[in-house]
Amino acid sequence: MFNDGLFASACAKTGVSREEEILQWLVIRQKSYHYSVKKVALEALTGWRFNDEFGDLVHKSGKFFSIRGIEFRTSGDIEQSWQQPIIDQPEIGVLGFIAKKIGGVLHLLVQAKMEPGNVNMVQLSPTVQATRSNYTMVHGGKKPLYIEYFLGDKRPLVLYDQLQSEQGTRYFKKRNRNIIVEIPEESLFETTSDFTWMTIGQLQLLTRYDNLIHLDCRSILGGLSYGVADSELRVKSVGIGCGARIFDSMICDLNAGEYSHAQILSWLTGVKFSLEAKCGFIPLRDVEGWMRDGGRIRHRDNKYLSVVGVSVEAESREVSNWSQPLVKSNDGGIIGLVCQMRGGILHALVQALAEPGLIDIVELAPTVQCTPENYSDDIPAYVELVRGEGVGRNVVFDSTLSEEGGRFFHSQQCHRIVEIDADQTIALKGNYCWMTLRQLQECGRYNTHLNIEMRSILCCISPLISE
Amino acid sequence: MFNDGLFASACAKTGVSREEEILQWLVIRQKSYHYSVKKVALEALTGWRFNDEFGDLVHKSGKFFSIRGIEFRTSGDIEQSWQQPIIDQPEIGVLGFIAKKIGGVLHLLVQAKMEPGNVNMVQLSPTVQATRSNYTMVHGGKKPLYIEYFLGDKRPLVLYDQLQSEQGTRYFKKRNRNIIVEIPEESLFETTSDFTWMTIGQLQLLTRYDNLIHLDCRSILGGLSYGVADSELRVKSVGIGCGARIFDSMICDLNAGEYSHAQILSWLTGVKFSLEAKCGFIPLRDVEGWMRDGGRIRHRDNKYLSVVGVSVEAESREVSNWSQPLVKSNDGGIIGLVCQMRGGILHALVQALAEPGLIDIVELAPTVQCTPENYSDDIPAYVELVRGEGVGRNVVFDSTLSEEGGRFFHSQQCHRIVEIDADQTIALKGNYCWMTLRQLQECGRYNTHLNIEMRSILCCISPLISE
Repeated sequence: MFNDGLFASACAKTGVSREEEILQWLVIRQKSYHYSVKKVALEALTGWRFNDEFGDLVHKSGKFFSIRGIEFRTSGDIEQSWQQPIIDQPEIGVLGFIAKKIGGVLHLLVQAKMEPGNVNMVQLSPTVQATRSNYTMVHGGKKPLYIEYFLGDKRPLVLYDQLQSEQGTRYFKKRNRNIIVEIPEESLFETTSDFTWMTIGQLQLLTRYDNLIHLDCRSILGGLSYGVADSELRVKSVGIGCGARIFDSMICDLNAGEYSHAQILSWLTGVKFSLEAKCGFIPLRDVEGWMRDGGRIRHRDNKYLSVVGVSVEAESREVSNWSQPLVKSNDGGIIGLVCQMRGGILHALVQALAEPGLIDIVELAPTVQCTPENYSDDIPAYVELVRGEGVGRNVVFDSTLSEEGGRFFHSQQCHRIVEIDADQTIALKGNYCWMTLRQLQECGRYNTHLNIEMRSILCCISPLISE
Repeated sequence: MFNDGLFASACAKTGVSREEEILQWLVIRQKSYHYSVKKVALEALTGWRFNDEFGDLVHKSGKFFSIRGIEFRTSGDIEQSWQQPIIDQPEIGVLGFIAKKIGGVLHLLVQAKMEPGNVNMVQLSPTVQATRSNYTMVHGGKKPLYIEYFLGDKRPLVLYDQLQSEQGTRYFKKRNRNIIVEIPEESLFETTSDFTWMTIGQLQLLTRYDNLIHLDCRSILGGLSYGVADSELRVKSVGIGCGARIFDSMICDLNAGEYSHAQILSWLTGVKFSLEAKCGFIPLRDVEGWMRDGGRIRHRDNKYLSVVGVSVEAESREVSNWSQPLVKSNDGGIIGLVCQMRGGILHALVQALAEPGLIDIVELAPTVQCTPENYSDDIPAYVELVRGEGVGRNVVFDSTLSEEGGRFFHSQQCHRIVEIDADQTIALKGNYCWMTLRQLQECGRYNTHLNIEMRSILCCISPLISE
């Protein structure tokens, strides 16, 4: 089957020595280049300006991205509305891995890449991360390395290729083309010292380290589905003993869970149907509750996010120095997934979450996806279940992972997976549903289904396969 | 499996006597009510006006729908742009069938429903067709019959439930909730004389008659997938001999075709990626090439479509008289599907078509979907293959079926399925791909994948199961 290689690669874990080797290599990469990121007032950013018409923050070329205002409104069963600044970048980027079998196991070509907003500056990233502005060389720099493997006519075997959303509370209808292509095992392929070959399992396992695996890796790997081919065959072929519970939940029949797949899709349809949501641009200067203050854009109560400016020097990038705005999310964000054995199969508690910047507004999101400090009361459901300790619940994953450093400045979120004992009862709130990992991964094959926070945490659950 | 009933129902064909019975019943329904539809100048429509701001045609309540202008532009690999009038109805309607087993076989509750723009005035329609304006009773009329089976909390078993698009060249981001719910076999269920119970197979078979099966039926039935459960079991359980080729193509492995499902999804991703499409409203009065003339809106060359006004009297509807605009598509439209046995499995030639009013712009469309008379040269691909006669091709389906009579006035399209001999070679043009019916139906489970013309022709291919 087409994704046998992906699955085998996901099951192939690093030994301690290989993990050490990768960590040491990354430290060397971090030290190998001169990087400098300095905060600059938005008004002083070279090449950027607030336009006269709307007060939007735009690049002088009209390309790259801009910071604009939106108004979001739902008028169906639940009425709500708000205004906020948002990143507008109306082009589809490429997030791609080149894959290649080494010793019979699929490996991905991973890049140690610097981004100005990255915590730790250099993180493990896909082979290619390129916006249309990058690969059409609007900025006048170099063409992104290896882009021809993804956009050329002679593209290698495609293992996965789907448009997936970015953060729906930060970007307006932004998507990337998440893609994995495989080159033949016998290919001669020379890489620079910024690249190394890793299995999917190795990448996933390293999500246990804070701020090491870049969001773009999690975005791609968390969208993969493993449940298509015959499972026995695959487990035997990779020769490892997978932890039965997570594995079973990934490869079980699509209708083996508490709800059939048709019921899941119907529930999602119902949430979308009830919303009657609209989202449109308004002038940034008119966005209620937000202000320009001290060289940045911030909320009057310092909630949610701010927009700051940075000046960057980086000798490893296509362009060696530039200035740009970055979005800084408030600290304390939580991405939490609650799991439970139900009817003998591991289920995840999933919400159908409306976010203003998503093309279809509603996508499947983790149990918890919020920054509790932004709420004075009415804190979203299940936050305490994820955050607190208690009898009958077990924190099985807990890392701090960061958002994409090309648009976000040191924005980190706690990623936490909590398993509830099978005999515990928790009330199912509106817009939440129990799904098997198989059902989640099946949805990941199609666009507009798994939001990026869901894909990020799904990438983290995979290492637990070997429990 | 959850959709066994649907499949069995699709395979359960009408005998001649039942077909005669339905046709006679429909004639009686058509004669039972007084209907009158008169053409009226748009300026004279009661309750409607061209607004001052944009020249848009709107209802005085601000509800129902409006006729506005759009500009569509693609700036990726292919640059194109145009302006046109479009229907704006920013709400999700309900198109629903109540289903019930009779004698062990699933039947759908079909309504003989009048719509002002219908050819033949009364067509076989779903149990419920309701806009939010209808069921929230904006018009002050009666609540749509049976709506509580679809929107109530005590909803019966859901067999299918998905948001599906309407015509992307006629509506701006309009979707309906296509839904089938099953009530228990033992339910007492009294219907009025406007309703009758039919199997899916009976409905599909009647697509052979011109303008009998309403588009909303085709929209729902053409989105169903039959390939999920074990096929042998189902065929035996319904006790009929299905024509092997179409049946096999519907229930084969998802990756058994010329392309794997991952390759199909990758091809679709690639088309979307290459487009960089944008669509937004412009004032109707500014739409280039269109004019108000003689009480209607028309193109300067009388191409594409016109907007006309009608005054309606209908004693069977929620409101017994009203006025409204209707869209009249030009005659000569073709919806054509080219099929061929490839590698022993029947494949359909599918295009990834960009349409301005679709939420994700691109959906899967039939081989041919156009009105050739609108083109002076550069006629779309494969038109002659579908329209003409020739050696090595066989017209297996040919009916004239009409668009929805609540928004369209006597708009009919030739539906044609042509099978090419297995030994014929036809060149594969850009944006086209060969897919099995299984792959098409799998895509139909998710929204933004099959456009309404594709679902309409897929509904017509099913009767060929018994070949």
